[in-house]
Amino acid sequence: MSLNNLGIVKRNITRADRAAVDQLGRFGSATVHEAMGRVGLMKPYMRPIYSGEPVSGTAVTVLLHPGDNWMMHVVAEQIQPGDIVVAAITAECTDGYFGDLLATSFKARGAKALVIDAGVRDTRELTQMHFPVWSKAVSAKGTIKATIGSVNVPVVCAGALVNPGDAIVADDDGVVVVPAAIAQQVADAAAAREANEGEKRAKLAAGVLGLDMYKMREALEKAGLKYVD
Amino acid sequence: MSLNNLGIVKRNITRADRAAVDQLGRFGSATVHEAMGRVGLMKPYMRPIYSGEPVSGTAVTVLLHPGDNWMMHVVAEQIQPGDIVVAAITAECTDGYFGDLLATSFKARGAKALVIDAGVRDTRELTQMHFPVWSKAVSAKGTIKATIGSVNVPVVCAGALVNPGDAIVADDDGVVVVPAAIAQQVADAAAAREANEGEKRAKLAAGVLGLDMYKMREALEKAGLKYVD
Amino acid sequence: MSLNNLGIVKRNITRADRAAVDQLGRFGSATVHEAMGRVGLMKPYMRPIYSGEPVSGTAVTVLLHPGDNWMMHVVAEQIQPGDIVVAAITAECTDGYFGDLLATSFKARGAKALVIDAGVRDTRELTQMHFPVWSKAVSAKGTIKATIGSVNVPVVCAGALVNPGDAIVADDDGVVVVPAAIAQQVADAAAAREANEGEKRAKLAAGVLGLDMYKMREALEKAGLKYVD
Amino acid sequence: MSLNNLGIVKRNITRADRAAVDQLGRFGSATVHEAMGRVGLMKPYMRPIYSGEPVSGTAVTVLLHPGDNWMMHVVAEQIQPGDIVVAAITAECTDGYFGDLLATSFKARGAKALVIDAGVRDTRELTQMHFPVWSKAVSAKGTIKATIGSVNVPVVCAGALVNPGDAIVADDDGVVVVPAAIAQQVADAAAAREANEGEKRAKLAAGVLGLDMYKMREALEKAGLKYVD
Amino acid sequence: MSLNNLGIVKRNITRADRAAVDQLGRFGSATVHEAMGRVGLMKPYMRPIYSGEPVSGTAVTVLLHPGDNWMMHVVAEQIQPGDIVVAAITAECTDGYFGDLLATSFKARGAKALVIDAGVRDTRELTQMHFPVWSKAVSAKGTIKATIGSVNVPVVCAGALVNPGDAIVADDDGVVVVPAAIAQQVADAAAAREANEGEKRAKLAAGVLGLDMYKMREALEKAGLKYVD
Amino acid sequence: MSLNNLGIVKRNITRADRAAVDQLGRFGSATVHEAMGRVGLMKPYMRPIYSGEPVSGTAVTVLLHPGDNWMMHVVAEQIQPGDIVVAAITAECTDGYFGDLLATSFKARGAKALVIDAGVRDTRELTQMHFPVWSKAVSAKGTIKATIGSVNVPVVCAGALVNPGDAIVADDDGVVVVPAAIAQQVADAAAAREANEGEKRAKLAAGVLGLDMYKMREALEKAGLKYVD
Repeated sequence: MSLNNLGIVKRNITRADRAAVDQLGRFGSATVHEAMGRVGLMKPYMRPIYSGEPVSGTAVTVLLHPGDNWMMHVVAEQIQPGDIVVAAITAECTDGYFGDLLATSFKARGAKALVIDAGVRDTRELTQMHFPVWSKAVSAKGTIKATIGSVNVPVVCAGALVNPGDAIVADDDGVVVVPAAIAQQVADAAAAREANEGEKRAKLAAGVLGLDMYKMREALEKAGLKYVD
Repeated sequence: MSLNNLGIVKRNITRADRAAVDQLGRFGSATVHEAMGRVGLMKPYMRPIYSGEPVSGTAVTVLLHPGDNWMMHVVAEQIQPGDIVVAAITAECTDGYFGDLLATSFKARGAKALVIDAGVRDTRELTQMHFPVWSKAVSAKGTIKATIGSVNVPVVCAGALVNPGDAIVADDDGVVVVPAAIAQQVADAAAAREANEGEKRAKLAAGVLGLDMYKMREALEKAGLKYVD
Repeated sequence: MSLNNLGIVKRNITRADRAAVDQLGRFGSATVHEAMGRVGLMKPYMRPIYSGEPVSGTAVTVLLHPGDNWMMHVVAEQIQPGDIVVAAITAECTDGYFGDLLATSFKARGAKALVIDAGVRDTRELTQMHFPVWSKAVSAKGTIKATIGSVNVPVVCAGALVNPGDAIVADDDGVVVVPAAIAQQVADAAAAREANEGEKRAKLAAGVLGLDMYKMREALEKAGLKYVD
Repeated sequence: MSLNNLGIVKRNITRADRAAVDQLGRFGSATVHEAMGRVGLMKPYMRPIYSGEPVSGTAVTVLLHPGDNWMMHVVAEQIQPGDIVVAAITAECTDGYFGDLLATSFKARGAKALVIDAGVRDTRELTQMHFPVWSKAVSAKGTIKATIGSVNVPVVCAGALVNPGDAIVADDDGVVVVPAAIAQQVADAAAAREANEGEKRAKLAAGVLGLDMYKMREALEKAGLKYVD
Repeated sequence: MSLNNLGIVKRNITRADRAAVDQLGRFGSATVHEAMGRVGLMKPYMRPIYSGEPVSGTAVTVLLHPGDNWMMHVVAEQIQPGDIVVAAITAECTDGYFGDLLATSFKARGAKALVIDAGVRDTRELTQMHFPVWSKAVSAKGTIKATIGSVNVPVVCAGALVNPGDAIVADDDGVVVVPAAIAQQVADAAAAREANEGEKRAKLAAGVLGLDMYKMREALEKAGLKYVD
Repeated sequence: MSLNNLGIVKRNITRADRAAVDQLGRFGSATVHEAMGRVGLMKPYMRPIYSGEPVSGTAVTVLLHPGDNWMMHVVAEQIQPGDIVVAAITAECTDGYFGDLLATSFKARGAKALVIDAGVRDTRELTQMHFPVWSKAVSAKGTIKATIGSVNVPVVCAGALVNPGDAIVADDDGVVVVPAAIAQQVADAAAAREANEGEKRAKLAAGVLGLDMYKMREALEKAGLKYVD
């Protein structure tokens, strides 16, 4: 093991199974997060720059320094179609690391989205291009190209550990990371959760209470709940 | 008085007068807040999950624990048409307490909106359903159902005291709480405020200065304001 | 020099050259900020109340006290067509200093926008009027008219120094301040930056990597970057 | 009921029983909060300006406006020996509402402490005077005396509802509010909690595990906990 | 005027009068801020790394980039005895720009303190050396030396404009900036404020109310304050 | 690989070499972080509850749910002398998970400290016991014991990845994580850094400038730095 992971570009990574990743995308971040046992969610300060464009893909990761986006050009070369770039920074930063030129390049390489624990800019152009981004901030402030970081090392992004190749599910509710090795297993669990949602929704819409549908009344009474007038 | 208000569901509450609540909704949160003497506003971190859907209604309150939405099913049963559910948490939390299934149930019971000092999820579906929510956060993170709280007790939500039955006015500018007993009085005060707004707007649009329209020049001079070149 | 700048309205200010200001607006905040050498950006918490309406203009400044918008009426008189009002507060405040009535007045005077390091309200009406605002918060909370501040003194707004007459460029990426004396110089520098952007975009869209287009490979290797499998 | 509670000074309030308040102080905020069923705690951003001086007392409340401490002089007259002044603000503010002169006055009236959801100053002198303060901020910024608020009305301070006369328990762990009517009941519950703490501490110090002392192993196994090597 | 102020070291600056600066220090930040008319205070997030060491001095300013402390060595050469280094960053950053080695150098040059809108480290050693620092954060994270900034240009530090040579007053209540040209004038105003403080303190300690000492009762009644039982 | 790491207690972990861990502790967090290449630092919001007690040790990790400290009793059993408990939470939480009783137990098992990305209480007692804690908050709010988490799984704590057995270095400047496998290597790098610090300090104290000692003048000039009068 080297002293640290800085200055490394890992070219070969094992990506989560494509079919599983696509399935996960259809369930959305909330259901996938439930199916994972409520782990793997990035912090809720990660917001889409525009709403209504859910994605799923496989992570290529990049570790950058505050105010320095040099490695964004390095990670571009490692993108394969279906990937989502996950960018972590070694310290808190809101600078705009990414704009329409880089988005053009990422898109040309087949990237589906960017998830970055920092800021981006050119949000209007990114929206028009339909290149979705989840970020901590929007900032016109550009960055320099002076210090190297790494590509495809494990990173912590917005509080979540992301290994290269992991499945990423991102939508208006947030960003969830699913370890590559269990992507199919989580997709199956999510499918099981959703199987009878339609039926439940119909009952609730008809006025049936969750109290009755989920048979909660006894447990609530046992827990000490008291009704008063 | 019991040791605390935990574990109680109050079934009978006195709701603010329906006509007054409807009137308050037409004035909007900014005018109502002024008419109240600038009290009763929730903190400005409370934001609508989608804009352009102002509501007013009567509060049914629910007090929940961090990461636990069990009582959401309990409060559903206490909803009457025209109510707005106001949810407070016993400690800071951004978890997603509420999604499209609960919204379906709330809507079926006649709820007009949810105001919650925590997170919600399924925001895309909530928007499509036209079920407005004011919240502190959006988060895919679900919750457990382990600990009881209370329904229709006084709660502090986003810094504002809410008693069950109070009138709630919520729009893109924020959420205001009007005590049930003074709902009509506040509506009247708001009406008085708005009476001559149209006239003022016309004058200002014609280039008349507020300085002159409100006759401020003398007071400003007396306060020491000096014009220099 | 007086003891402080409170209680002063400066009537005559030197505005940045109109043509230069218009040019700056066409480049947008990100390019202008780059052209300035990455200084002059307000903090990224300044957000537009609605997106998609970029503006540029000349600053008339106003310094207000927390919770007191009296000087908003004073600054209205100093507005000339093409101006942007830049409002700073002597302490942190999220109150709603500005709503549709003041906007009507500002617009009638020729103001193009408001930039305020505090809150605003009536956001729905402001959007319908197409009067763009960049603010720190949205809040229904109104303000009083009790204490005088100043107009057209230098102010610090959201971390940036603004002198009356400076050029302001604001869009979805943020708000940039360009000193009046160098507005044309910055516009020229921005133009130079944009000159070959179209060509770059075409190359990147065709799959050429930034690594090659910007000839970064040697520098990265020299900096110690290592590729591993 | 008046339109709002602004502009009122209530002179006669029912204070929590002195003996109960003293007992609560001996248990400290953490134990009292537990005994209350985990409600009544102010948000943890409320911190003592110096540590090591726990207090308990009865609340006299004051509602102030942002940047305006006029009512601090009004509340001073309502202080009785053993009281703690609880100050709430109608909007977020970090200004320094209170310094050594007011502290001298409060102390002369018998106040034991100040709890304020805003800033204070002269912290060095306050520490030397041994006048403890729990606040949201420290700020040299002074305030004006222009707008009236109220004294001894119910207030929301740092997220907690405080009625005049309630018992306040404040120490290095935070500030807890105990409704006057249940002060003795809570003190008894706290006493019961503490009764066997010494014995527990001795066992834990001797190396007995909580797992065994609280007999948790079976419940953990039932909940699905698995030990692996 | 150059395109921007980056890359410049100004060697000759006009420092505020030493005697005035010393006087200001004796009054402390709260009194000086009052005497200035409540302007010039840095935001209250600026805190001393240890308490009880008030200072005053003349500002030498330095503008740095996020995560880069190269210019700290450049500013060191410009320090004269009695100076306080005021460090601003071009974007938000909490990195530790300054530790015991730089403090040794600054102290050897005669610096009295550092005021920095970012982080510092080696706080234990700085405390032992009695080198006071006001900062936004404490962080073990070091910085690089790659990009130039400027020395002795006007900077915005923690929301306050600082020109080289301005008087700085810093203590446990915060950091205040006094323009060099009015340092003596502000010191005189501060002296006037303090002249009768001792007398006031004695009265208040004797139980006289501010209501009576400042003759507020009539104004309060006129403002509408009502006493109820 | 299981679906997730919840509900697991790993008993056998490989701890970093004791001698290396002790060496790291002597260098402190700032030097160790430098020696690591500026990675591995927890976010600077992690602060010691009292200052002046630096520690180093080997991590036993625990993953808890918001508001639930059940697993704290489970992790206690896995502590070996010289360990530091590192506690992560599955969502943001400031509740007080840990007080003097648990500290008594941890200390009896040989724990040197607690690092927790949440709140603690009984800080006065913890200080008197000399049991150091680094935490995000202090809060009197207790927790429940309802949901299982895991012990000795990899966790993300305050933005840093911690594997069980990693070396932890914590002091007044922050908390650094050193992977177990490179503990000795990092200690050697730190030693090399410190070797000539004494000499440097002496030179700087004698007035030698870093500009000269580090031979920076040429590089600064080359970077474009200009001196003006």
